[in-house]
Amino acid sequence: MTQPSYAPSPEPHTEPVMPGLGSDGHAVAAGLNDDDEDEESTHPRLVSDIKDYLLTHGHLLKLVRFETASRVPAAGVNVSCHPTRFPRHLFTHAKSLQPSMNELYIRASIDENWLYNVLKQEIESDPVGLVASLWDVWVKCREAGTLQRVACGIVRSDYMLLATDDKGDVSLKQVEMNTFSAAGACHAEGVASMHRWLMRRRLAEMDDADTSIQPQLGDLPSNANTASIVASLSAAHNIYQRQFLNGRPKCIIMIVQPENFNIADERPIEYGLFACYRCEWRDVLARIHLGPDRELLFQPSGSGEGKTFEVSVVYYRAGYDAEEYSEGIGGRGIRLMLELSRAIKCPDVKMHLVGMKSVQCALATPRVLERFLPDSRHVDEVKETFVEMHALDSSPAGLEMRKWATNPENAVNFVLKPNLEGGGHNIFGKDIPTFLSEVPAKEWHRYTLMRLITPPAGTDPGMLLTSEEVYEGPVVSELGVLGFAMWRVPIQGSEPEILKNEAIGWTYKTKPEGVDEMSVVKGYGCFDCPLLT
Amino acid sequence: MTQPSYAPSPEPHTEPVMPGLGSDGHAVAAGLNDDDEDEESTHPRLVSDIKDYLLTHGHLLKLVRFETASRVPAAGVNVSCHPTRFPRHLFTHAKSLQPSMNELYIRASIDENWLYNVLKQEIESDPVGLVASLWDVWVKCREAGTLQRVACGIVRSDYMLLATDDKGDVSLKQVEMNTFSAAGACHAEGVASMHRWLMRRRLAEMDDADTSIQPQLGDLPSNANTASIVASLSAAHNIYQRQFLNGRPKCIIMIVQPENFNIADERPIEYGLFACYRCEWRDVLARIHLGPDRELLFQPSGSGEGKTFEVSVVYYRAGYDAEEYSEGIGGRGIRLMLELSRAIKCPDVKMHLVGMKSVQCALATPRVLERFLPDSRHVDEVKETFVEMHALDSSPAGLEMRKWATNPENAVNFVLKPNLEGGGHNIFGKDIPTFLSEVPAKEWHRYTLMRLITPPAGTDPGMLLTSEEVYEGPVVSELGVLGFAMWRVPIQGSEPEILKNEAIGWTYKTKPEGVDEMSVVKGYGCFDCPLLT
Repeated sequence: MTQPSYAPSPEPHTEPVMPGLGSDGHAVAAGLNDDDEDEESTHPRLVSDIKDYLLTHGHLLKLVRFETASRVPAAGVNVSCHPTRFPRHLFTHAKSLQPSMNELYIRASIDENWLYNVLKQEIESDPVGLVASLWDVWVKCREAGTLQRVACGIVRSDYMLLATDDKGDVSLKQVEMNTFSAAGACHAEGVASMHRWLMRRRLAEMDDADTSIQPQLGDLPSNANTASIVASLSAAHNIYQRQFLNGRPKCIIMIVQPENFNIADERPIEYGLFACYRCEWRDVLARIHLGPDRELLFQPSGSGEGKTFEVSVVYYRAGYDAEEYSEGIGGRGIRLMLELSRAIKCPDVKMHLVGMKSVQCALATPRVLERFLPDSRHVDEVKETFVEMHALDSSPAGLEMRKWATNPENAVNFVLKPNLEGGGHNIFGKDIPTFLSEVPAKEWHRYTLMRLITPPAGTDPGMLLTSEEVYEGPVVSELGVLGFAMWRVPIQGSEPEILKNEAIGWTYKTKPEGVDEMSVVKGYGCFDCPLLT
Repeated sequence: MTQPSYAPSPEPHTEPVMPGLGSDGHAVAAGLNDDDEDEESTHPRLVSDIKDYLLTHGHLLKLVRFETASRVPAAGVNVSCHPTRFPRHLFTHAKSLQPSMNELYIRASIDENWLYNVLKQEIESDPVGLVASLWDVWVKCREAGTLQRVACGIVRSDYMLLATDDKGDVSLKQVEMNTFSAAGACHAEGVASMHRWLMRRRLAEMDDADTSIQPQLGDLPSNANTASIVASLSAAHNIYQRQFLNGRPKCIIMIVQPENFNIADERPIEYGLFACYRCEWRDVLARIHLGPDRELLFQPSGSGEGKTFEVSVVYYRAGYDAEEYSEGIGGRGIRLMLELSRAIKCPDVKMHLVGMKSVQCALATPRVLERFLPDSRHVDEVKETFVEMHALDSSPAGLEMRKWATNPENAVNFVLKPNLEGGGHNIFGKDIPTFLSEVPAKEWHRYTLMRLITPPAGTDPGMLLTSEEVYEGPVVSELGVLGFAMWRVPIQGSEPEILKNEAIGWTYKTKPEGVDEMSVVKGYGCFDCPLLT
């Protein structure tokens, strides 16, 4: 016997509060709810199995506001309790398109004139904004001349299913392309493993006659996201090592946000790599130095003792917020030093820039795809995944759309997205005209109008464990395809030399129907595993 | 970009409270402490690396009082930040003694007359106590006749170092033998892996000239506790499967406490086994049934649908508290049904009984060891690990000791332990006379006096992450050797047939010097890894 009994204290406890993640993604305090047991009572075993699986496998979010010197509490990431159906052929199709998606964005990033034209209005109108900051970094790099022509990127292309008729026919539509700091890979792998474990158990418990008509393990696609990202970063590291044979030890640097609550989506990558160190964005200038040959030098101990490493690859998991480029923390200088260096960037600043919504919109305009992918046999298939998008800029077409979008009848089928990369801050349907009426017209160019992807009416109700509740009801899912590419930027012209280009994994998230955003960290979306049908 | 910035909120936050584990092992609320950053500032990287490692590998304790329907927060188990020195030859020696320790306790458990004599006073004086409850279960099993002669046990023998002179010479002394529900194996393995990771990184960062004089990875012993326990339970399962070839699917049942905060020390064993189900102690009679041939039958779904399993092995991780045997929950009936069944018990009720302190005391009296281990060449070595122990019973020697113990000058070198199994509830040194003066003399037989093991003065200060603080100062460690044995109980006589008998792993815990108890779950002890010297 080595454990004391740990039954909950019998007296009523009104004082302690439960830390959770609020709707703004921040830890909040919420009173214990006596109804909780009732909510859970219908599926007590499944829910408790899932809670314990997440805890024992570290698929958690830190409750950073409750951190003390010696410990930090954490709670399970949002998950779906059952795998959610997804058509097998579209899952395969999405993966098969990834090399073309990668190539499209690589080529867009290399065509500087095209890219500048797309981003120009944003750069000129907001010189301290994110886009202008990144463009400024790029211009300075171009002036200094590049010492590293190899770049790489870990990207994620997100898709939803669009109902194309009333009979259940669906097609695959791209929500967005994340070209910078794509997250969720490690959690996605863990939750996929959890669903395999749950299904294996369920099948083992069934009467043999029933098992044949049930979903099988083969209906859950395999997932090795973490090992794939580790292999991808290692490939870049190996190229750098061959480029610079100077006997100095090399390491990968993961640039991270301070007090990050989502380290469970970063640390497994670090653990898998031979030599990878984390450096917080704000500490970059103090901890990493540019050597005489523009090599990046890093000393893990920080104390003047021990080895100095030369950074082979800069892997960004920070640097996506406009505030990170503020004067106060020398933000632009941080990015500039890293980009000027001869390290391989994952990704470089131009691949970051093509992740903006305005670029996604521009790529969807006629003949652009044909221009960037002249030899691809997938042009039509890629185009097929695009939905209607409109810039609200000051071009004649843009001005036309501005008028059109203020009509509630038109707006109801659209979503208004700020011209940033990633999700969030979107305005949906009927809220668009009111929102635009409150924004000065000279700032409308900062938004892109995108047709809403209306998913098919769900057949199975879902069951989701969110930070707030056990949700049971209709759900909507989003598939993310992870891609990796490595390329050599041409000295002149527009032809990159593609060194690696592949789909390396997937993420899958599910949310309650009727909730607009898919963000897991904001408490809506839940990691899930597709049940291929 | 898929993560929002998550900097701590700038406004002061007085409302949220931080869940931690209080000194009673219960979750408590404690205000955020502004001094925390200062405390941490000397070793920020090491502490943050450890916090993240525990979180991402699931070496956590549940904060059960803060559980809601959809999630449960958790925080890292207590750990030492550096491996703590331990003599290599004594580590090896402790492991080599384990088969003899296992055999000693097996033989004591089989010698019913001897065991009854040791426990008689406790059984007779407190008929609803733990010992009487267990003995009653055994008597009823004996009357019913046993259908399963194979038993097994996963045990843990705990040792401390005793300073034998002023020059640093030390010897190995046994603190106790845990024969029931031995815990800590999974955490111990995880923390050992963590220390290997930390050391590998530290060595990789050092200048090459320095690495040769540093501790090496070979100084950290390997640990595969979880796989070893899984293999041990599987071996018992396989024996049962060969015994009862009836075509019914078989499973292992892990009997667990409700609302257990330490599931991270149980679940990994379940995940490793092919078919293992958890059943809470209080649910046993509702979920498990005794069939006509005294086979234990279990249906995982509990709904009447799906397969019914026959239980091969009952693995106890509950049933060590006297309260668990109370009338209210039918406690004795729970244990009786499990013990009466033809399942293999891990361990059986008599192996449970020999874990009492009074048995440890009796085994240390002259000529007992020679009687139980007549053929062992390790008798002297086993005896060498025993420390002076005295029963406070009503025998002439016991009465003598009672008088002696009330003298503070004598008591100061002893610890008074209740005749239960496991640690905790101990009275130390000068507190003993006062304590005894408050206990009616007729209850003194419930305690055993044991000489304190005075460890050598520590050479290196330790650094511990406890639930309360980052402790830096002198520390004391305790080595646990995990053993597994499987034996066939003789129909007559005292010769068990030993089927398996081995050391299968180790645990290592470190606490601040001056703190009496080693309990990790109560917030004192910290999981650690020996640095073999």
